[in-house]
Amino acid sequence: MSSIKKMVLIGTGNVAWHLGHALKKAGVDILQVYDRQPEKAKGFAAELSTTPLSNLSNIIEDADLYLLCVSDAAIAEVGAQLHYVRGIVAHTSGSISLNALKGNENMGVFYPLQTFTKGLPVDLNQVPFLCEGNGTQTESALMALALELSTKVYAISSAQREKLHIAAVFANNFTNHLLAKAHQICEENHIPFSVLHPLILETARKATEANPENSQTGPAKRGDTVTIEKHLSQLADPNLRELYTILTKSIQEK
Amino acid sequence: MSSIKKMVLIGTGNVAWHLGHALKKAGVDILQVYDRQPEKAKGFAAELSTTPLSNLSNIIEDADLYLLCVSDAAIAEVGAQLHYVRGIVAHTSGSISLNALKGNENMGVFYPLQTFTKGLPVDLNQVPFLCEGNGTQTESALMALALELSTKVYAISSAQREKLHIAAVFANNFTNHLLAKAHQICEENHIPFSVLHPLILETARKATEANPENSQTGPAKRGDTVTIEKHLSQLADPNLRELYTILTKSIQEK
Repeated sequence: MSSIKKMVLIGTGNVAWHLGHALKKAGVDILQVYDRQPEKAKGFAAELSTTPLSNLSNIIEDADLYLLCVSDAAIAEVGAQLHYVRGIVAHTSGSISLNALKGNENMGVFYPLQTFTKGLPVDLNQVPFLCEGNGTQTESALMALALELSTKVYAISSAQREKLHIAAVFANNFTNHLLAKAHQICEENHIPFSVLHPLILETARKATEANPENSQTGPAKRGDTVTIEKHLSQLADPNLRELYTILTKSIQEK
Repeated sequence: MSSIKKMVLIGTGNVAWHLGHALKKAGVDILQVYDRQPEKAKGFAAELSTTPLSNLSNIIEDADLYLLCVSDAAIAEVGAQLHYVRGIVAHTSGSISLNALKGNENMGVFYPLQTFTKGLPVDLNQVPFLCEGNGTQTESALMALALELSTKVYAISSAQREKLHIAAVFANNFTNHLLAKAHQICEENHIPFSVLHPLILETARKATEANPENSQTGPAKRGDTVTIEKHLSQLADPNLRELYTILTKSIQEK
């Protein structure tokens, strides 16, 4: 069990929604829910049967954890308003350094690496949590808390987490964008996108079994210039043509 | 049941391997296996307990189906050598028109839309088969055969299939390449790639539930220039920088 029993949740967005529900379910006492906008704080506090807070000066001071689920740009600013608390002040961002919380006695990072959609529950049990703390005790407390939500808990430095976040941009944001382009091509040609579903799922499954480099196939990989030229001649949208060209080139650059 | 009972399999590559095993298992009589290289024909024929063939002039003439699992570039050439057969001559390519087989009395397409790795069996039951024939009877026979392997069988024109093949390049080849890049970033920074597995699987799963456009997230989507600049400053590899820049721009275009 983690030493973290009582916490304040700061933020009401996507990550706050998922972590708030999961932490409550895990038995953590959520004392307050903060959002600068009173209506948002109220709504989410009601959902978690707790107290809304829209002014940080009224924050409960003896919580074990103040969990910042706010935008990257707001982390340092919100953290700076919590210098007087003794509990752990932790953010949940993939790309912000632990040092953004400098000035807080006990500071940490509690980063769930997953793509969340508000309102659609995710099985957090399989979500990797990447934790960091400015001291062994803080880091251990955060890792123990993560272990109450997930089986995949890692200690990772800010430097590594920043790199991992870039890898995640490639693995999720960019691949998702290409899937959206595949959807667009299907739609424009009256082909049900569901025809591609098995291929999409298999592509992901394979990537979890070996280095995806080894399962690369297709015209670019085999240097099939005839097919590449045919595809380009069929793409009217200049954006699709550019993506096709750059990605083909990148695959061919061994 | 399909009217196709006896067939000749032409080719010994990836697609031939998967279809050959599946069709044999479905009870189709594979009379011969052809490869220009006698050793290859022999090896694969032994695997399927049938007769090897390395000279097309010795091909059995009364098969119901001659299935071409050869490279795109070889389809027209091989098809032209089979003008005298009465059975269906069909190819298995996503990007080649039915007309490449012109001159054959009964010609068709039997295209399984999946990424295959030789030797790693795939559950064909979930693989979409896209069929086309130069007559109703030919098309129906191919579709009935596909239904013996899979529950997902579609009739689709050459024009649509070519578009679908481009969409598949985006959905598999290009996304897989980006996953390989994510793998590279992890490896260079001593982060286990397995940390990204749940994200990769969830990205694919989400794409099968709605238009991926709707679940786009990340710094590009939210116009987070600070994070984008930070990421670019951390990417030393010019190839990664170019991909990051182009894909970010593409996400931000409307």
